[in-house]
Amino acid sequence: MAADSATDGATVAVFGAAGYAGSLTARLVQRHPWFQLEHVTARSDVGRRLDDVYPHHRVPLVLEELDLDRHGDVDAAVVAYPHGASAPVVAQLRERGVKVVDLSADFRLRDLATYEEWYKPHPAPQLLDDAVYGLPELYRERLRGAALVANPGCYPTATILALAPLASAQLIRDVVVDAKSGVSGAGRAATDKTHFVTVDENVSAYGVPRHRHTPEIEQELAALGADTTITFTAHLLPLDQGELVSCYVTLTDPETDIDTLTTLYRDAYADEPFVELTTTPPGVRDVRDTNICRISVHRDARTGRAIVFGAIDNLWKGTASQAVQNLNLMFGRPEGEGIEV
Amino acid sequence: MAADSATDGATVAVFGAAGYAGSLTARLVQRHPWFQLEHVTARSDVGRRLDDVYPHHRVPLVLEELDLDRHGDVDAAVVAYPHGASAPVVAQLRERGVKVVDLSADFRLRDLATYEEWYKPHPAPQLLDDAVYGLPELYRERLRGAALVANPGCYPTATILALAPLASAQLIRDVVVDAKSGVSGAGRAATDKTHFVTVDENVSAYGVPRHRHTPEIEQELAALGADTTITFTAHLLPLDQGELVSCYVTLTDPETDIDTLTTLYRDAYADEPFVELTTTPPGVRDVRDTNICRISVHRDARTGRAIVFGAIDNLWKGTASQAVQNLNLMFGRPEGEGIEV
Amino acid sequence: MAADSATDGATVAVFGAAGYAGSLTARLVQRHPWFQLEHVTARSDVGRRLDDVYPHHRVPLVLEELDLDRHGDVDAAVVAYPHGASAPVVAQLRERGVKVVDLSADFRLRDLATYEEWYKPHPAPQLLDDAVYGLPELYRERLRGAALVANPGCYPTATILALAPLASAQLIRDVVVDAKSGVSGAGRAATDKTHFVTVDENVSAYGVPRHRHTPEIEQELAALGADTTITFTAHLLPLDQGELVSCYVTLTDPETDIDTLTTLYRDAYADEPFVELTTTPPGVRDVRDTNICRISVHRDARTGRAIVFGAIDNLWKGTASQAVQNLNLMFGRPEGEGIEV
Amino acid sequence: MAADSATDGATVAVFGAAGYAGSLTARLVQRHPWFQLEHVTARSDVGRRLDDVYPHHRVPLVLEELDLDRHGDVDAAVVAYPHGASAPVVAQLRERGVKVVDLSADFRLRDLATYEEWYKPHPAPQLLDDAVYGLPELYRERLRGAALVANPGCYPTATILALAPLASAQLIRDVVVDAKSGVSGAGRAATDKTHFVTVDENVSAYGVPRHRHTPEIEQELAALGADTTITFTAHLLPLDQGELVSCYVTLTDPETDIDTLTTLYRDAYADEPFVELTTTPPGVRDVRDTNICRISVHRDARTGRAIVFGAIDNLWKGTASQAVQNLNLMFGRPEGEGIEV
Repeated sequence: MAADSATDGATVAVFGAAGYAGSLTARLVQRHPWFQLEHVTARSDVGRRLDDVYPHHRVPLVLEELDLDRHGDVDAAVVAYPHGASAPVVAQLRERGVKVVDLSADFRLRDLATYEEWYKPHPAPQLLDDAVYGLPELYRERLRGAALVANPGCYPTATILALAPLASAQLIRDVVVDAKSGVSGAGRAATDKTHFVTVDENVSAYGVPRHRHTPEIEQELAALGADTTITFTAHLLPLDQGELVSCYVTLTDPETDIDTLTTLYRDAYADEPFVELTTTPPGVRDVRDTNICRISVHRDARTGRAIVFGAIDNLWKGTASQAVQNLNLMFGRPEGEGIEV
Repeated sequence: MAADSATDGATVAVFGAAGYAGSLTARLVQRHPWFQLEHVTARSDVGRRLDDVYPHHRVPLVLEELDLDRHGDVDAAVVAYPHGASAPVVAQLRERGVKVVDLSADFRLRDLATYEEWYKPHPAPQLLDDAVYGLPELYRERLRGAALVANPGCYPTATILALAPLASAQLIRDVVVDAKSGVSGAGRAATDKTHFVTVDENVSAYGVPRHRHTPEIEQELAALGADTTITFTAHLLPLDQGELVSCYVTLTDPETDIDTLTTLYRDAYADEPFVELTTTPPGVRDVRDTNICRISVHRDARTGRAIVFGAIDNLWKGTASQAVQNLNLMFGRPEGEGIEV
Repeated sequence: MAADSATDGATVAVFGAAGYAGSLTARLVQRHPWFQLEHVTARSDVGRRLDDVYPHHRVPLVLEELDLDRHGDVDAAVVAYPHGASAPVVAQLRERGVKVVDLSADFRLRDLATYEEWYKPHPAPQLLDDAVYGLPELYRERLRGAALVANPGCYPTATILALAPLASAQLIRDVVVDAKSGVSGAGRAATDKTHFVTVDENVSAYGVPRHRHTPEIEQELAALGADTTITFTAHLLPLDQGELVSCYVTLTDPETDIDTLTTLYRDAYADEPFVELTTTPPGVRDVRDTNICRISVHRDARTGRAIVFGAIDNLWKGTASQAVQNLNLMFGRPEGEGIEV
Repeated sequence: MAADSATDGATVAVFGAAGYAGSLTARLVQRHPWFQLEHVTARSDVGRRLDDVYPHHRVPLVLEELDLDRHGDVDAAVVAYPHGASAPVVAQLRERGVKVVDLSADFRLRDLATYEEWYKPHPAPQLLDDAVYGLPELYRERLRGAALVANPGCYPTATILALAPLASAQLIRDVVVDAKSGVSGAGRAATDKTHFVTVDENVSAYGVPRHRHTPEIEQELAALGADTTITFTAHLLPLDQGELVSCYVTLTDPETDIDTLTTLYRDAYADEPFVELTTTPPGVRDVRDTNICRISVHRDARTGRAIVFGAIDNLWKGTASQAVQNLNLMFGRPEGEGIEV
């Protein structure tokens, strides 16, 4: 290990720091009062300073090509690689004793068969049992001291937080989730789909009818007691950061009134520093550049459905700031250090 | 009647032409090869030329305060007034023998009690029986020669067209409609909600959980054979024109396969000049500034749901160009005259 | 020649129809009452239907790889190729007797040395003398019946129209042009620079301090009598279509008053169907999807400068609809056919 | 004075906290490690919590109607009132010994006649001599301990910082400033001009040809040695926060080369914590939500002009964070406290 953590704080490397999620993680770690950003690596833009690629992040480190012998000499690593590419690197890091937050989907699904149904053969299944699902609001105790954390997907983060109180109360019979995301959620790759002229003044669904975040949401709802098959559809919107999930829930007890629903959410999130409840539907502007998930719950008296909205910043609570929240828990730091408002 | 329709085309007045819907209607009528735009009236901006208020519409008429003695001397009028304010003017126009397309909700609901439950006491209930619901794809024959047409709401237009084939086939058990609209749908009134800084980089739901377009949609689905209570939620998006409805349908027969669904839609819309079917989810850019509704149908094999997307331009097919489509039918003109691509 | 032009209208091919400019040209030709769109060719997306690549243009032709033996069998071609790549194809088309509107810069600069200073060795200098600069407001008579037209750049179109009355009146001593363009002006190539997340909520200058449209503007101002070296700077804005030039003119006679300036512009453009004068600064929304250039002239009494704003749609008057305007002139058609409001 | 400043930090009230500038100032003060936000007052939204009006600022105070007897009991006040309305309140605060940062134009112009030429009769001319112009990069020493600070306008902040090195070197003969601003610069008032549909996909100039920020810029350039009459034009862009000034400078010595220019800027800003120099033109995204002004200088070899770009966030360095920078200086705090990246 590089640093004397007791005095200096832990050292961190960010692998895959040329992308939107990785670069923001690098910035948050770099400004963190206790962690020290040691390395940033990437497959593109090698040799460029990160503050040249992303001026607004102001991280004055040079992007390097990954060399585990040099870059593995840290206390922790955040791996921002695509699915499938991440697991082998994570495995090597774990062998070296480096704690890891993995931003990919590789360790999110606890069931190997489910992973391989939605993705491909798993490159490191032996680590699945060790990985903790990095949603602190659900797994805070297990995350304290964890060595491998699977950072949740952005849509699952918003959706699970929006539905957890209903799931825990066994109130979910069926759910339709209509999700809306800003373009940064599609990543930095310049394609027809992310071209300004394609997105501007537009909105459309994508990944219909099978979005890979579906099994992750179902896994966590089931863990809370709601064993249901959900309908999940994502839409791309003309904005950069922000994600809204609109959840339409058929309740097991359609007579559940709005007071009961409201109380359920208040009780569930009373002590959560990064969950806000509101009576009016949240907007993604309300949570831009924060680690906050803002939620409102409503009741459609005509159909007996509950309607729940959850808004996050897909790059922050949906990815990078949640990764730092997890790092804080893994290293025994105050949970909000470096990511508070 | 002012004009010799046989030779000159019919004369048209647009009342409420200072708003987004009215001004676009005025433009479409003004460029129409057969209709003649005779008057534009408004409650704001009186005395200004319409092409000063809306340069891009290039309508060189002066906005006047309504004076039925002067402005009622036309063959047809399009009334772009708010709900409740419209019906009294429509009644006076009908007394003078003027054919009317009403853009408000006042004559859309055939059941007086339903109207009064969602709106307020009806100012002219005696006309309800005469009004034809102006969705040509459903009521083409009744619209030919009609004297009073209730132009559909923008959300109902997209939603009913998206669901009609399923409704007619008795396939709808339950529907969740998640609607997304550009800001022009909120009208020209300058408010906190329509301020650029409020809307930009934002998305949120509004009118939850009771949106007034709900009974209009239910009425038309019921007329087609699907007597269901729907969940309808609208969201405001950072774009000017365009509306997308994402419809999640629980089918009466969940085994219905995608080929059956596709065939159903192809058959239903084979001869419709303004409905386009596509296999990929439509974007609102695809239909901007057109009278077209673009629809795709999908099947979620995991839940057995059908997912249907419908995209329109809320100001065109959602309002103004559909009003002209109705005028064409009312006066025996080719249905697409003046509004074709 | 393929068609019997007298009866059927002339046939047209668009080469490079997969880009923004080419595809819009194809749409305008396809809907033109007299021209007939015969072929669309491209280097990307070969084999796809154009209405699949660009649904909103609704051109039901398949993009083919260029084969002059097949595609050269037309009355006219619009070539939408990059600079340098265009001239060789244009030369071959001219040898076959095909009339050409070239959208590239290859034939815009009449002086070979200037071209080669700003671009590269010219592939077909022998055609320079035959090419007519396709700004109808300046060269209408020469364009009637021309066989090779160099369609102006988008910035030059707006700038020259904004400055022509001053140039003709020998009033220009010096000009600073600050130009602002929507992203479609950067073309369809998906790059870091055109990624939604790069452009959104952003504005910056590019191509500083040497923009290739500069010599084209200087050439035309000189032809009108204003032999000056201009400062021209372009900025990229978060909008799709539209271009505004803000021209700051040091006058040869700084006492010229606003009435004189206004009269100058009124006289110059009194009979121009596609130039609009306004007293308030034009916005690009005012001219979206039109062939119109909207201009206002002001006087800064404190400095004696004239300030002139010119707004166009870069894809329409800046490229595609101006190409059709030129085609109309080349074939003796009414100048506004197919591109009027 | 309310607080024991030595131990607790100084107390601050923000008057006019319902607007964009005031509410952001309130947020920055509220999170400041030393200052304490004591009161927020407003003329609209009285009785609402500020975090209800602006959820993303998360300031949990209630907006109150101004009552100087209650709200004047603070160490400092930031007054975010319109021009003319501010001075009387500032005068009363000064009489009570409260230090003031005034965000209006009332104390920016040192010459009374100039103020009254561009605005109206001055309500408190006796205070003009005491006011320090709050641009720390120019007046740092005078700001330390100042009691009344006139916070610069947003356009002047960017423009003066962009031009100061040239002005100090007596290099400016003439300047054209083409400024581009996001909509938040137009304030929170909901009007036709700030309606989303007006601004979206649009760009146009406003306030032509006399913008009130002109004399403020001229005053400061003159103070640095460049006594020139400038041409200043502002444009409204479809983005929320951000301001770019493009400055076209005719140099007194047109032979000045780029190395000389670059050195001039490096020397001028070497020790400035909130000025960044870059070789490529800055974008407003680079400085969003920061107190930073990012500048690039270029030379147009063809005309001998210098071209300088300056980018700021109009709400931060252009207003609210600069106000806090001034508060820090006024109270002897570290200049960047509470507003550093």
